[in-house]
Amino acid sequence: MSYTLGIDYGTNSVRALIVNCQTGEELAAGVVNYPSGQQGILLDAKDAHVARQSPADYLYGLEESVRIALAQANQRDDFDAKDVIGIGVDSTGSSPIPVDASNTPLALDAAWKDHLAAQCWLWKDHTSHAEAKRITELAAAHRPQYIAKCGNIYSSEWWWSKIWHCLNVAPEVFEAAYSWVELCDYVPSVLAGVKDPKQVVRGICAAGHKALYAEDWGGLPDKEFLSLLDPKLADLRDRLYTQAVDISHSAGKLCAEWAEALGLPAGIEIAVGEFDVHFGAIGCGVTEGTLVKVIGTSTCDCGVVSAENTVADIPGICGIVKGAILPGFYGIEAGQSACGDLFKWWVETACQNDESMHRDLTEAVASQRPGQSGLLALDWNNGNRTVLVDQRLTGLILGQTLHTTQAEIYRALIEATAFGARMIIERIEAYGVPIERVVCAGGIAEKNALLMQIYADVTGREMRVSGSSQACALGSAVGAAVLAGAHPDFSSAQAAMTSLKDIVYRPDPAAHATYNQLFKLYQEIHDAFGGVNSNADLGQVMKQLLNIKESI
Amino acid sequence: MSYTLGIDYGTNSVRALIVNCQTGEELAAGVVNYPSGQQGILLDAKDAHVARQSPADYLYGLEESVRIALAQANQRDDFDAKDVIGIGVDSTGSSPIPVDASNTPLALDAAWKDHLAAQCWLWKDHTSHAEAKRITELAAAHRPQYIAKCGNIYSSEWWWSKIWHCLNVAPEVFEAAYSWVELCDYVPSVLAGVKDPKQVVRGICAAGHKALYAEDWGGLPDKEFLSLLDPKLADLRDRLYTQAVDISHSAGKLCAEWAEALGLPAGIEIAVGEFDVHFGAIGCGVTEGTLVKVIGTSTCDCGVVSAENTVADIPGICGIVKGAILPGFYGIEAGQSACGDLFKWWVETACQNDESMHRDLTEAVASQRPGQSGLLALDWNNGNRTVLVDQRLTGLILGQTLHTTQAEIYRALIEATAFGARMIIERIEAYGVPIERVVCAGGIAEKNALLMQIYADVTGREMRVSGSSQACALGSAVGAAVLAGAHPDFSSAQAAMTSLKDIVYRPDPAAHATYNQLFKLYQEIHDAFGGVNSNADLGQVMKQLLNIKESI
Repeated sequence: MSYTLGIDYGTNSVRALIVNCQTGEELAAGVVNYPSGQQGILLDAKDAHVARQSPADYLYGLEESVRIALAQANQRDDFDAKDVIGIGVDSTGSSPIPVDASNTPLALDAAWKDHLAAQCWLWKDHTSHAEAKRITELAAAHRPQYIAKCGNIYSSEWWWSKIWHCLNVAPEVFEAAYSWVELCDYVPSVLAGVKDPKQVVRGICAAGHKALYAEDWGGLPDKEFLSLLDPKLADLRDRLYTQAVDISHSAGKLCAEWAEALGLPAGIEIAVGEFDVHFGAIGCGVTEGTLVKVIGTSTCDCGVVSAENTVADIPGICGIVKGAILPGFYGIEAGQSACGDLFKWWVETACQNDESMHRDLTEAVASQRPGQSGLLALDWNNGNRTVLVDQRLTGLILGQTLHTTQAEIYRALIEATAFGARMIIERIEAYGVPIERVVCAGGIAEKNALLMQIYADVTGREMRVSGSSQACALGSAVGAAVLAGAHPDFSSAQAAMTSLKDIVYRPDPAAHATYNQLFKLYQEIHDAFGGVNSNADLGQVMKQLLNIKESI
Repeated sequence: MSYTLGIDYGTNSVRALIVNCQTGEELAAGVVNYPSGQQGILLDAKDAHVARQSPADYLYGLEESVRIALAQANQRDDFDAKDVIGIGVDSTGSSPIPVDASNTPLALDAAWKDHLAAQCWLWKDHTSHAEAKRITELAAAHRPQYIAKCGNIYSSEWWWSKIWHCLNVAPEVFEAAYSWVELCDYVPSVLAGVKDPKQVVRGICAAGHKALYAEDWGGLPDKEFLSLLDPKLADLRDRLYTQAVDISHSAGKLCAEWAEALGLPAGIEIAVGEFDVHFGAIGCGVTEGTLVKVIGTSTCDCGVVSAENTVADIPGICGIVKGAILPGFYGIEAGQSACGDLFKWWVETACQNDESMHRDLTEAVASQRPGQSGLLALDWNNGNRTVLVDQRLTGLILGQTLHTTQAEIYRALIEATAFGARMIIERIEAYGVPIERVVCAGGIAEKNALLMQIYADVTGREMRVSGSSQACALGSAVGAAVLAGAHPDFSSAQAAMTSLKDIVYRPDPAAHATYNQLFKLYQEIHDAFGGVNSNADLGQVMKQLLNIKESI
């Protein structure tokens, strides 16, 4: 028997999962909440956009979560820690960390430990929106190819925006940092005992999706372009990296120090890091023709296309990066900025009801037929990630009468996220990437059968659910298993180690027909408010909703 | 001293008010809820559009409300019932009642008393929408002048739609009815002891606004046109009326029978009936240049223009009828289909909160600045009465984020009704009718200072409030006082008998400036969804709301 560890750094906690490489059995899991800040996030009372995280929490969480998982696994007669052959790590991103010349985060130094800019800049930190806008403008003018594969818009959540913002608002931190490392690259480098930022193995997933890295133009953005931002960023380029690799490469071997700390064999393989959802896609069995949807507070959609084919730029898709998910494939990423968050907003913030109301509303909604409420909503309360790539969009609900109920709006919001999901699927297919299978993961996919049925009815496609509740950590373990030689390739590793639940949500033809009518109206509103159609004729929208309502 | 009685037939109750003709003092009031049905309304479990009322309730309520008011007034030394010199009556409308040849409602006959179609067809009965649509089509094709002054759309709430629907669904009732009488004409005819429907004095207010009556085309619609609807309606025309009059005419003198029943002097003047809000406008002191807004569950707006001038057709205005409010003036009527109902919907239906939450939300809303929420709403949950005249429109809220609160949406809905109010004011002024003063009445105007301030800030106009809480009944009393000779004309009667509260809501210049920006966006959404602009460019609406939000 052999085992690998998958370590998944989420937004509020870290999870270590021990997986059987032959069967995919999840033997044990340790979960540790980050101890600092508010639910692990360091906030700034003066600026709601700030979201940072303590690197010390990452190291504490690493040791604790693995310790818990191993203690649990060690209860079993058939497990022996010496049979662990590798570790894979995934994390949120882009979450850059400023480090010194010894690859130590500045924040671990007493001089910087209380400085917010010296911490990890968590993915959802939005302080850098001005820098993101300027990068988008400069790239459009000077290097359009840089942003062509990320929907032509560079985000405030990404690498260069954040580092540039640090330079602008906390130059002392920027000056003190020798280099910067993505969280999903940093943790593997720690496990491998790498003491020089230039020796840190950088994953193509983070580099390609967030740092404008591509082999086509020689790696990171060139110095001439970076000088347009700030000459100091051009200088920094020399202290970053020249190559990023996919997960067929190794990030190193487990160093003696961490082997001892974790109670694992020294020298085992450390996989190259990927973002959580990318390894999650592997944990869901992603392959060409499969779209993996991780449905939680927001959604993230991933697909792969053989690198032997050429993939057109797909307008509005977050990223198309060779090797980002699976070696030998382009990785495609899309997503919706709000999903579970949207339902939570409606029930708990807008209606000021208790969290327990979700269950009541889900029951009430189950008896409503498609189109019955006359409502139509946009799922943009947190902006639109795909296909409009515009954070400055907001929510919309229309079709209300004096009788419209809380449950009807709840269902309309679920439907809105389903329509948004369909927009993504149709956009990807419109550019020559067929989607034959949809596999969903995440808490909502597992628990909310009503939502899954609505997604099937709206998209007209079967919805399957990942067999694992911890697909990201499982995917990391799969990555480590392949690297360590437990399987010859990802295809066989996924066949052995991943699964689907038995349940299949099949589209109901009548519901799908009604949703086709509603989706047409959704598209009209979407395009009008999304700025895609500047000659919108919306005078019949409300009447058509009433017609549909009256016809069913 | 002389006194008049104003009797106001509302949707759920009738009110009798005793007023001093010299001072306007309201000595006493009697209020009686209609005893039948649900809150006085006869419903049909099989059809939510049905809203009927028992004529017997009207007679019971008349006698009881006057008895209560007189008993109260008689407590005072300075009052003597023999000093009552006249009675005025107002009611909701169009509320047609089928009557026999002796002017007795069919429903008072045992044979018909349980037949829903034999009752009064209350204003808010919406069973006749198909007939209304057909009348609109036929008038547009054959007699466009008939509907030019009611926004080119004939409503399901109006006279001919209802009577035609009765003919279509309950021909036995139509056949049994000798004639039909509006509620506001029926009650004066009862007091005057009129026993023949053709002798009932018909008010121009109801006839002109609801029955397509105008001197220009010889009274009611001609028989050729009515035959296009149904030849039986052409026949009915002979049993209706040939002339409708304004309130400078008398509806008769109090008959002996009712004088005794009520304890009032026989032979006193009975004023011609008007709809509640029209007499309400008089009770608010309406004169040329004044817009009276009655703000309740919905709003009704009234103004007058000297009949010596010509008034253009104002597109989208419910009605422009010579003599409908004051003799010698055109009456102009507009309105919003939902106001208080909209706030009630949000708090009690959508959010499932208690009625008491309105107070909490009003307090929370008071500290919000215009534009702060980034929200924009349309006030169409019950359709749009003015200026789009379209019941098949629905509500819309946009600009929501994941942080949008219940109170912010509450304020956005108040603002939506304010924007709707501004649309009406600007439409009326655009057609050459200046509005120099706005006087508000109704429960919301009296109790909700926040809403009144928002209305002032949105419209950029001072908002005044009627001195009387019972402006409709007061206006009826004013009408009776002029008819009975207590004053030479309405101008002097209004000066003596009506008043304004001291409070003046003055627009705040900064708030008005922000609302000017928001109103521009409201107009864009209004015109796009209202079908006025079929080339709408809405791509910047959400961004502009965010810009405004960030700029304040």
